[in-house]
Formats: sequence, C-alpha cells, structure tokens
Amino acid sequence: MHELIYWLDLFGIVVFALSGALMAGRYQLDPFGVVVLAAVTAIGGGTIRDVILGAYPVAWVANPLYLTVILVTAVLTIIFVRQPKRIPKRFLLIADAFGLALFAVLGTQKALTLGSPISVAIVMGAITGVAGGMIRDVLCNVIPMILRQEIYATAALLGGSLLVLFQYLDFNENTATLLAISGALALRLAAIYWQVSLPAFEIVEKEQSLSKKKRNKYK
Amino acid sequence: MHELIYWLDLFGIVVFALSGALMAGRYQLDPFGVVVLAAVTAIGGGTIRDVILGAYPVAWVANPLYLTVILVTAVLTIIFVRQPKRIPKRFLLIADAFGLALFAVLGTQKALTLGSPISVAIVMGAITGVAGGMIRDVLCNVIPMILRQEIYATAALLGGSLLVLFQYLDFNENTATLLAISGALALRLAAIYWQVSLPAFEIVEKEQSLSKKKRNKYK
Amino acid sequence: MHELIYWLDLFGIVVFALSGALMAGRYQLDPFGVVVLAAVTAIGGGTIRDVILGAYPVAWVANPLYLTVILVTAVLTIIFVRQPKRIPKRFLLIADAFGLALFAVLGTQKALTLGSPISVAIVMGAITGVAGGMIRDVLCNVIPMILRQEIYATAALLGGSLLVLFQYLDFNENTATLLAISGALALRLAAIYWQVSLPAFEIVEKEQSLSKKKRNKYK
Repeated sequence: MHELIYWLDLFGIVVFALSGALMAGRYQLDPFGVVVLAAVTAIGGGTIRDVILGAYPVAWVANPLYLTVILVTAVLTIIFVRQPKRIPKRFLLIADAFGLALFAVLGTQKALTLGSPISVAIVMGAITGVAGGMIRDVLCNVIPMILRQEIYATAALLGGSLLVLFQYLDFNENTATLLAISGALALRLAAIYWQVSLPAFEIVEKEQSLSKKKRNKYK
Repeated sequence: MHELIYWLDLFGIVVFALSGALMAGRYQLDPFGVVVLAAVTAIGGGTIRDVILGAYPVAWVANPLYLTVILVTAVLTIIFVRQPKRIPKRFLLIADAFGLALFAVLGTQKALTLGSPISVAIVMGAITGVAGGMIRDVLCNVIPMILRQEIYATAALLGGSLLVLFQYLDFNENTATLLAISGALALRLAAIYWQVSLPAFEIVEKEQSLSKKKRNKYK
Repeated sequence: MHELIYWLDLFGIVVFALSGALMAGRYQLDPFGVVVLAAVTAIGGGTIRDVILGAYPVAWVANPLYLTVILVTAVLTIIFVRQPKRIPKRFLLIADAFGLALFAVLGTQKALTLGSPISVAIVMGAITGVAGGMIRDVLCNVIPMILRQEIYATAALLGGSLLVLFQYLDFNENTATLLAISGALALRLAAIYWQVSLPAFEIVEKEQSLSKKKRNKYK
C-alpha cells in the first residue's frame, strides 16, 4: 500500500526534475547548474510542505535516494536532449502537469496522515504540487505557470479534494490515490491541450503596453 | 487582551488577501488562481516567521479559520471588483500598507513572546510584514515594493521598534500594540500620499537604459 | 578549532551583506531598505539550511551579533560607497564569490555535524552558499547568478566535496576547511576572471528575440 505512494512520489521527482532540466537547457547552463535547477524543482514543493508542517526530517534529507534520482534524471536529460530549445514547449508543460497532479494528491495525503484539518491538507497538497515549479520559474525570471496558465491551481486543488472525497467514500487507499491523481492530471492536460496557445504572451504584452502608457504619463 | 491581537491578526489577513486578489485580477487568473495568490500574500509572512522561529504548529495550520477568511475575502473581491484594472493602484498600496503595519507589530510581539532578543524580534516583525507582499510581487514578476517604494522597510522596522519602546515604557499592552501599528501605518501612508508618483518606473527605465548601454558595449 | 569556523562564518556574513548593499545601491533605496537587502542576502542561505535541517534555533535568532554585523556592514557601505553605480560590477561578483565559497563549505560542515548523509550534506552546503544571493537577485528582478554565471553551482558543490574528501583523508579540521574554501573560491574567481564578459546579457537578448519570434507567431 505505502509502496505505491513511495513509487508515485519518486515518479513525481523524476518528472519535475525533467521539467527543471529542460528549462535549464534553455539557459545553456553548465551541467551542475542543470542539476541544481532540476533539484530545486523536484524537491522544492515537498520541502516547503514538510518545513511548514514541521515534519522533520524532510523527505530528501532522510533518504538520499531522492538526490540520486534527480542526478540521474538530469544527467540523462543532458545526454539525450542535445538541443533543449528544439524540444516543443508542450513537453515541459506535460512533465510539469504530471508532477503537479502527483504531488498535489500525495501532499494532501501526507498532511492528512500528520493530522491536519481537511482544508489545510488540501492547501498543503496544492503547495506541494505548485511550489517546485514556481521556484523554477521565478529563478528563470519567468512568470510562474500558476499565473500564466489557466486551470493550474484549480487542478491542484481538485486533486486534493478528490482524494478527500474518495477517502470519505471509503475507497481502497490505492484506488483513491490513483483516481485523484488521474482526475487532476486529466483536468490539467485538457487545459494544456485546448488552451496552450492562449495566455502566456498576452499577459506580458499587456504589461508592456501598460507600462508604456504609464511611462508616457509620468514623463 | 489577547483577543484584540487575534482580531488584528485576522484583519491583517483580510487586507493582505485583498491586495493579493487585486494583483491577481490584473493577470486575469481563473478564480482558484486568485484564491491562491491571495493566500500566499496573506499567510506568507507569518509562515516564514513561524518556520524560522520553529514555532510549530504554524498559525494557519493550527486554525483553518485563516484559510476560510482568505477564501471569503478572495471570493468577495472577485464578485464586487469586476474590473480590477480600473481599481486605482493606490487602493492596492493602501491595503498593503495596513497589512504591513499590522503584521510588523504583531510579528515583533510574537517573537518577543517566544523569547527572541529585541533586535531579532524587530527583524522578525519586519519579515512578517514584508514577506507576504514580497512573494506576491515576485510571483507576478514585479520588483517588490520594498525595492520600489520609499519608506517601506523603514515603516516595518518603526512599527516593531515602537512596540518595544511602548512596552519598555510600561504602556498597557493593547495601547502599545495599537499605537505602534498606528505609527507604522501613518509613516507608510504619508509616504504613499506624498511620493506615490515617484520611484517605481524610474528604476525600471534606468535598468533598461543601463542594459541597453551595456549591450552596445558588448556588441 | 570551532573558533575559526565562527570567524569564517561572520566573514561570510560580511561579504554577502556587502554584496546585498551594493546591489541595493543600484536601486537608490532608502537606508533601511539597503539594510534589509543586505540582511536577506547574508542570512538567507543559512536560514534555509537550518530550517530544512530543523536545526533550531536558527543561527541569527540565537545570536543577535549576526544582525549587528549586517547593520554595521550596510551602514559602512552606505557611508563609504557614495555612488554604487560607479563601483565596477566585478566588485559585487567577487564579494559574492567569497560568500559562496565560505558558506558552501561551512554549510556542508554543519550538515555533516548534524548527521546528514554525505550527498545531502554537500547539497545542503550548496544551498547555504547559493540561496542568499538567489533571493537578492530574485528580489531585484535579476536572473540569479546561478543561471547567468558559469561554474557557479559547480564551485559550491566542489567546496562541499573537497571538505568531505579532506575529512576522509584525515586532514586537520582547520586545514580541511580552509583548503576546501580556497578550492571553491579559486574555481569561482577563475570563472569570473576569464568569463566575466560572457554570458549575462546574451541570455537576456536570446530570450527577448525568442519571445519576439513567438509573439509574431501568435499574432
């Protein structure tokens, strides 16, 4: 039972590390920089969750396997993805969506196990799912996906809520976990599929034209 | 006595959640995204304070009322503020000023209660007052107010210092708290009132022209 | 023995506070804003390390001398550096390099003392060395050095690894510490010396031209 959660957690580490390494590739970092960005993305969310809950030791401090998995993922990305700029942006979005769905549900689960109230646990799950990617984007000076992509926070909150619902309905824990992850993932992938050409640059342009207007006003 | 502090704390949550929701409105987020940005702004500072002090459980984890208040504030903002871009920017600044003054003083108070030295407690208060808004601005890829607005950190540090002073002068605790908050708020509002048209864009322009110069130099 | 580490730690605080104050000078902050940016840069990395390790109380909360040192450094910087924009950028880079090397090694050491596995301790050291400057850069809306400067994360990871190696070879602890710091510092300074004119603006330009391309595509 707990074994499934453990493997899902490591899979979340892999996909977020991959998204961090792909993003790093766009900046032509030296290999160690790629590893660091992959690591920050992969363990950022879980670390913030554990620190806020006071759940010491933090997962990756207790179990160095996490760092090994990140290292291997980053190195494989460097080896097999020679030109990260040619990888379609959608690939990064999809890796991020898997990490989001997995960590939102697993984060909610951990918070519930530690005795958090339901609303707190769902928010905790959202933090776990969203924070690693947020740090990745902020470090790269990109507006975080949660502000650019529709149905991002929504998908994370849905994942945690579904888990709570399925547990309330007395589903088997493995089933509840997998169904909740699938729900969040389906919603987020649907959003990517039908809206990927929508918002990202529009916002930036609006802000630029806004600041141009203001600049004229103040000049 | 402690009741006053509790209500002031919740009021700080409301005004910071409001400032986060208003900022979110400028980015046309879906409703859940608005709630998330409101939450990060409202509980960011207190969370960082509690985590650094090791004061577990963190306030909003122990008491789900915080999340409810944020949710209600964000939803009301969405309902009543149909076009956040038309809300004068000053409104966001004023909500932020209230949150800054309240949390700077209450954060200092909590750190003192937990036995921190005076200088540490004042810095802890400043972190509580400043960090939530900082995270809000960084996520929106805006230079944080602390770097754009004059007399921002100054107001936060004044709030904590006044509290220490009034406690040293043996004022009644409620009086000391309210006076310290008023002092910090008055200073910050005065800065907004007389300087609001000043610095923000100047910095950005300078940096742009700076990087243009450098770019030419390197070309 | 421990005395050396204590002084090296305070020296790291000074150089990072200096780098924060110099960066603040470019934004013409009021004096308190300069102090805050200096403080965030100087204690950011160590705070994150202690919080993730659950090593309470956090160093600067236990010992207010840290804040005093930061305050004095920031005030002296304000007094003696009248025009921070005329200070060559290399000066900020060098101060940052000293802080990076010192904190990467001392952070690894603290994590080892607290019983972390070797790989975790080295990563912990890198976080200590890198995070303060990262926060400084993110707050100033600048892409962090770790993403702009080559051999940045590499130098931090080298420092921690050298410490582990020298301890394994049974070097005297003071010798191991100083040699590891020198190794990391030498690597980073070499990178600054031979590559300082290289990457920073290239990335920004690439991104701009990239987004121009994309904008055209979506228009």
